[in-house]
Amino acid sequence: MITLLTDFGTADYFVPAVKGVILSINPEARLIDLTHEVPAQDIEYAAFTLGACYHNFPPQTIHLAVVDPGVGSARRPIVVEARGQFFVGPDNGIFSYIYARESPVHVFHAVQEELFRPLVSATFHGRDVFAPLAAWLSLGLSAEAVGPEIHDYVRFALPQPVVDAASGDVIGQIIHIDRFGNCITNLTARELEPNHAACSPRLKVGAHLVKRFTTHFAQADGSDELFAYLGSATYWEVAVWRGSAAERIGARRGTEVVLSLGGSQS
Amino acid sequence: MITLLTDFGTADYFVPAVKGVILSINPEARLIDLTHEVPAQDIEYAAFTLGACYHNFPPQTIHLAVVDPGVGSARRPIVVEARGQFFVGPDNGIFSYIYARESPVHVFHAVQEELFRPLVSATFHGRDVFAPLAAWLSLGLSAEAVGPEIHDYVRFALPQPVVDAASGDVIGQIIHIDRFGNCITNLTARELEPNHAACSPRLKVGAHLVKRFTTHFAQADGSDELFAYLGSATYWEVAVWRGSAAERIGARRGTEVVLSLGGSQS
Amino acid sequence: MITLLTDFGTADYFVPAVKGVILSINPEARLIDLTHEVPAQDIEYAAFTLGACYHNFPPQTIHLAVVDPGVGSARRPIVVEARGQFFVGPDNGIFSYIYARESPVHVFHAVQEELFRPLVSATFHGRDVFAPLAAWLSLGLSAEAVGPEIHDYVRFALPQPVVDAASGDVIGQIIHIDRFGNCITNLTARELEPNHAACSPRLKVGAHLVKRFTTHFAQADGSDELFAYLGSATYWEVAVWRGSAAERIGARRGTEVVLSLGGSQS
Repeated sequence: MITLLTDFGTADYFVPAVKGVILSINPEARLIDLTHEVPAQDIEYAAFTLGACYHNFPPQTIHLAVVDPGVGSARRPIVVEARGQFFVGPDNGIFSYIYARESPVHVFHAVQEELFRPLVSATFHGRDVFAPLAAWLSLGLSAEAVGPEIHDYVRFALPQPVVDAASGDVIGQIIHIDRFGNCITNLTARELEPNHAACSPRLKVGAHLVKRFTTHFAQADGSDELFAYLGSATYWEVAVWRGSAAERIGARRGTEVVLSLGGSQS
Repeated sequence: MITLLTDFGTADYFVPAVKGVILSINPEARLIDLTHEVPAQDIEYAAFTLGACYHNFPPQTIHLAVVDPGVGSARRPIVVEARGQFFVGPDNGIFSYIYARESPVHVFHAVQEELFRPLVSATFHGRDVFAPLAAWLSLGLSAEAVGPEIHDYVRFALPQPVVDAASGDVIGQIIHIDRFGNCITNLTARELEPNHAACSPRLKVGAHLVKRFTTHFAQADGSDELFAYLGSATYWEVAVWRGSAAERIGARRGTEVVLSLGGSQS
Repeated sequence: MITLLTDFGTADYFVPAVKGVILSINPEARLIDLTHEVPAQDIEYAAFTLGACYHNFPPQTIHLAVVDPGVGSARRPIVVEARGQFFVGPDNGIFSYIYARESPVHVFHAVQEELFRPLVSATFHGRDVFAPLAAWLSLGLSAEAVGPEIHDYVRFALPQPVVDAASGDVIGQIIHIDRFGNCITNLTARELEPNHAACSPRLKVGAHLVKRFTTHFAQADGSDELFAYLGSATYWEVAVWRGSAAERIGARRGTEVVLSLGGSQS
């Protein structure tokens, strides 16, 4: 089973070329699209999306992730082994959520060129390097066989909420905006338990103040007020019923959020 | 074989999370996307789309349909058995076309929580409730095993054309607009036979009058006039060659159409 | 293995109806989407896209390609056999790249109506004619069995670069624009070898002059200048780092490009 995550879109020949190469090596491979709608060259978007669903797949799944602004340069192709799964892609931080959450993690620099297509283009390693690597892994190749293990792989720090010592407020940020315009923050149940009835939390997002904390969407029915809920990716999200919270707020990835716990009035 | 119909879009982790959960339970499941581009929370769009193609799939197909504005509320998860196929989703009318067209239909309220994921989120029953239900059905679970049969399931009335007693006109409406901008009405061959040469039918849509009735697109070649044809979903549709009829007309779902049969001049 | 290429989009019931029909005839068929985002009725776009990836698929692959403005008219349904693969679709030039590149090519006019669905609609041959044809081929039907071989099939000339006798310039054109806005020309390594360091080539595209020729994207990092590189479809492409070259240039398919080789100053 091989999943595919790219910024190739679905209108061009890029994705089918990748699939064709895989199926030419392993006609029995089962291909599952994660998404090909990652904004062009947006590694953080790709990392979040993969991080939000790789654990739903069974052991032995091979995740092919190609968002690769450095294609053709010296950035390394890698194979990661973690959680009994494999991850194939460029060494540019795209697997940062895997590195942060799984242990042990083994990262191998793919240098065995006989595993690649005979002619490697300078612009399309998804087809010429990563697709054949994934296909060979699906046929039972071990991760170690692609090249030496490395430890200096690229990873970006996942933004962590911090507590302001003076006010006790928790300062986080928006780490993802989904297609409904819901704003996913990096606040989790650690920062605010779902069962928060006793306190009167407030969440400041830009110039907006969120006062309603619900457990599900339907609870917000009828109101056009912003509300927060603990979302399915285990993070608190800000939403608005039948609308885009991101547009309402003018929020973007990186926008600061400030959580004030009970007692705080503002 | 499991088909998937949602309003999740294809840019986020929602669809792959659903697929991962299914494949973790049944690695042999075959997954077919119907569409994930249902406009957010548009149950009628989903119902029409499923209604237009479920019968093209073989017996035993399991259709997973999740457009679910009431997620987290008391709306029931259901499994429908009809035509030798299964339908899994929320009890909100999304299967109305199945109810209207198939007989017998058996609807079961899924209450056996051990069939769900251990932790059911309040916002993502597609992943936590419906995906595992579909996966277990694909492994041979009977529909009866999910919970008690119910008869008060939610269904909305499919709009039916009516005949105006005075004028003899048939009054219908637009029930769907496709991606080309073609306007699908609820008029069928019952209201107007394809072989209509003998009469001079007229179709009024908003302020526009459609006078050309063709059997296929190519017949309209060269003209930018609106035309009507009996479409592949068995309904009369209004289209314009290389353009969007919906934009031309300013039509929306629910827009009234009036069919005047032969002899009518307007 | 059956691939699908259409202009149906992914929001409607069209693609699932095609898949359901195939799977009802051959439940074991493996379905791979090439793309369904071909601009409506754009045969040239479809032909280019298929031409850029069909060879990545293994022998016996069946490519179903339905961009079919003439549906319902006298245009012929055909099955093409080439390279050990099969191509199913309308006879409107959609397979022109196959005809130009493969030899031998055998084209058969599908006339055996018992291979179609019992009721063939006038507007949806993708579902009613082409899907069943592909399904039967996947079950082992020979291409010859669909009908007589024909030789007057429709093909459009693929635009070839020409050399201006006076100046020695090579005059080509843009044949495709991808989703990143990269402009794919019809110039190949024959017109300009990748290893061109010795000369100072210039590429004129509309009012713009491209002076940078790189081997890969990352090489252009930091500059917002237009650059050219030999792309993964074997054609020279014009791009701009983190932007749309097509928008910058105002380029469209058919826009002329003029390549001046070393020594030319303009």
